[in-house]
Amino acid sequence: MKTLLKNVGIYKDHVISEHQNIAIEDTRISGFPDVIHTEEYDTIIEGKGMLATPGFVNTHNHIAMTVFRSYADDMQLMDWLEKKIWPAEDKLDSDIVYAQTMLGIAEMIRCGTTSFADMYFFMNDVAKAVSETGIRAALCRGMTGCTPSGMQALEESKTFYQNWNGKADGRITVMLGPHAPYTCAPDYLRKVVALAHELHAEIHIHLCETKGEVENIKKQYGKSPILLMDDLGIFDCGCLAAHCVWVDDADLEIMARKHVRVAHNPGSNLKLASGIAPIHAMLQKGITVGLGTDGASSNNNLDIVEEMRLAALIHKANTLDPLVIPAETAVNLLTEGGAKALGYTDVGKLQEGYKADITLIDREGLHWYPKNDTMSLLAYSANSLDVDTVLVDGKVLLRNKEFTSLDIDKIRFEAERTKDKLFSSL
Amino acid sequence: MKTLLKNVGIYKDHVISEHQNIAIEDTRISGFPDVIHTEEYDTIIEGKGMLATPGFVNTHNHIAMTVFRSYADDMQLMDWLEKKIWPAEDKLDSDIVYAQTMLGIAEMIRCGTTSFADMYFFMNDVAKAVSETGIRAALCRGMTGCTPSGMQALEESKTFYQNWNGKADGRITVMLGPHAPYTCAPDYLRKVVALAHELHAEIHIHLCETKGEVENIKKQYGKSPILLMDDLGIFDCGCLAAHCVWVDDADLEIMARKHVRVAHNPGSNLKLASGIAPIHAMLQKGITVGLGTDGASSNNNLDIVEEMRLAALIHKANTLDPLVIPAETAVNLLTEGGAKALGYTDVGKLQEGYKADITLIDREGLHWYPKNDTMSLLAYSANSLDVDTVLVDGKVLLRNKEFTSLDIDKIRFEAERTKDKLFSSL
Repeated sequence: MKTLLKNVGIYKDHVISEHQNIAIEDTRISGFPDVIHTEEYDTIIEGKGMLATPGFVNTHNHIAMTVFRSYADDMQLMDWLEKKIWPAEDKLDSDIVYAQTMLGIAEMIRCGTTSFADMYFFMNDVAKAVSETGIRAALCRGMTGCTPSGMQALEESKTFYQNWNGKADGRITVMLGPHAPYTCAPDYLRKVVALAHELHAEIHIHLCETKGEVENIKKQYGKSPILLMDDLGIFDCGCLAAHCVWVDDADLEIMARKHVRVAHNPGSNLKLASGIAPIHAMLQKGITVGLGTDGASSNNNLDIVEEMRLAALIHKANTLDPLVIPAETAVNLLTEGGAKALGYTDVGKLQEGYKADITLIDREGLHWYPKNDTMSLLAYSANSLDVDTVLVDGKVLLRNKEFTSLDIDKIRFEAERTKDKLFSSL
Repeated sequence: MKTLLKNVGIYKDHVISEHQNIAIEDTRISGFPDVIHTEEYDTIIEGKGMLATPGFVNTHNHIAMTVFRSYADDMQLMDWLEKKIWPAEDKLDSDIVYAQTMLGIAEMIRCGTTSFADMYFFMNDVAKAVSETGIRAALCRGMTGCTPSGMQALEESKTFYQNWNGKADGRITVMLGPHAPYTCAPDYLRKVVALAHELHAEIHIHLCETKGEVENIKKQYGKSPILLMDDLGIFDCGCLAAHCVWVDDADLEIMARKHVRVAHNPGSNLKLASGIAPIHAMLQKGITVGLGTDGASSNNNLDIVEEMRLAALIHKANTLDPLVIPAETAVNLLTEGGAKALGYTDVGKLQEGYKADITLIDREGLHWYPKNDTMSLLAYSANSLDVDTVLVDGKVLLRNKEFTSLDIDKIRFEAERTKDKLFSSL
């Protein structure tokens, strides 16, 4: 199966070049031919005026929390969790998680997202939705060691890994998902590390999201969460750490040395008033950073272009330096940085041999005029709904802003049905 | 001329109600009939599933700076101004300003904006574009007292007021636009105040945008820019103050007492690393606040929904309080707050007798599902490209996401032509 993306601008090797072609053979990019023989291709996508970028990567999500989108906002964190989220999460089932995951995946594809990392429950249903929709994902079963189901979650994680890692034509990878240091005690985390080594699985964990949690861990263990995780061996497994808002220089040194990869969630961190993660300092130390939306309950959409915009803007004001996170850095966080954060080695660049995860962006919106610097237009002006075409693993999932195979009316209907079912049970 | 918006959700009196009708007679809202007689209306707009809000208001713009969108980013402010913007602004002409204003107005209408405040040069061309496109605007000729053209700018402002205030069926109001305290000395500002009193014109000015400018004014005059403006009588004219990032409690007291209205430009303030304006404190003191994009050179789009999102998010993290700027406050900044900031008394609410400036939002995007709280969906999840229909002064300017009368291909072409003309002259 050979596909050609014809006459597109492409973001490659840190610059954007116009009037390029991208050839795809099966699931991978096979080249960038100057001269094209149209008879060689099964599918030709005319891309005139479009911009091709590596598919966008959402590095931190709890995707089925779409059911809680705008369900309970403008509350204090503990009120929100104790009175709203936890009682409702207790009533989730496989049916609800599957329907809400389908909604979240469709929303992400519409915004140009080709892969995502997820941590939640009923992960078989999430994996099933990933498999069916064609998106790529790094999935983990969230584990809270402090609850009675802690040991069961470890067992489930193992089974989930065995059943799904490498499945869906290799589009699914499975990680282990201990929730956070404040919900998983050291003894529990040691068990997670042992299992990670046994399975050769990597770890996805929340770290240093709020000031309070960092202070509590320091009080309890006499060291920062980062140092505690390092001592427990979490970082020796390969680690995707979400948030990292409240980290100091000593923490950053450890993170850099141990190749901790960071999921930066600016929208969620702002909305929950957690703070602003020092990603400028992280990038200076060579730490890999990608962008995440976090769950729709705290964002409230899964629009990764909005996260790029936030990342491009908020660090400038936070450091009072207009030169931090310039346009190309923001675009890199959205694409290559995100792919690296998820541990991919052949995803995230437009390069021969890389997986054909590609987003085509329509540049005819008025906010793309006049046509000055394209990188800057993408970073500072683009809208997620400009996304026109999305390919994952060489397969076209969105074309002319329409889904090629997903039944969107059914997805909307099921999202409503399962939302009503959940809230009527409370 | 009678128009009916049928079966819409409406944001009115601080809440959203479904299945409502809005009747319009000529330019104004005439009522909200429960029972409708379709034969009474000349035009019926079926709004099933749509949400009607007061038209969005962009309270601070330099609209023709669309020509500089993504022309020169990621630079230090003075480098950017001295090496890029000022030399290029020197080459602007009437043709360029008109074409770029048409582009900016079309972009704003596409995003649901029904009125805006503008400060720039060649304002006759801006007013002509406002008149032709059907949008509402509060316009002023930017005046920099420190340049040789300072006195000429005052004269031009007077003529501009006389020629255009109240024109375009009352859609245009004219203000006086002294640029800022650091570009207009006290003697010059006294002349502006005298002219304002002579014409009964209000004032639009930049205040306290950067920390450095506030420090310099304090050094030079021994008082804050706010206190200096108060002493000069600027606030006695009715004043729209853009930015107000670096204001202290004493400044806020004066602003509240003198009814200074604030144009909050979060995107521009973040991008230029100016800082974060304390709008939460302003609102607590009863100060009127609206949202602005500032010019596209420092934003880089004119997407006022993006500004609402930023305003809803950044102040939570900045104060570490998730309860500040809740959903309804954010929506109010976008609509009624903005209209009040521009000095309108019959624009900015869905209320009988008010001007029919109305934005209809399509809620079928996946990010609007499942349908939990609508106000929260609007504040935290909506996308500007969800805007489906826009009315200003009772006239439909956008319908089904298409312009009813603007020739968008021509606007794009002219934006490119005049951009090329400008930059080839440098």
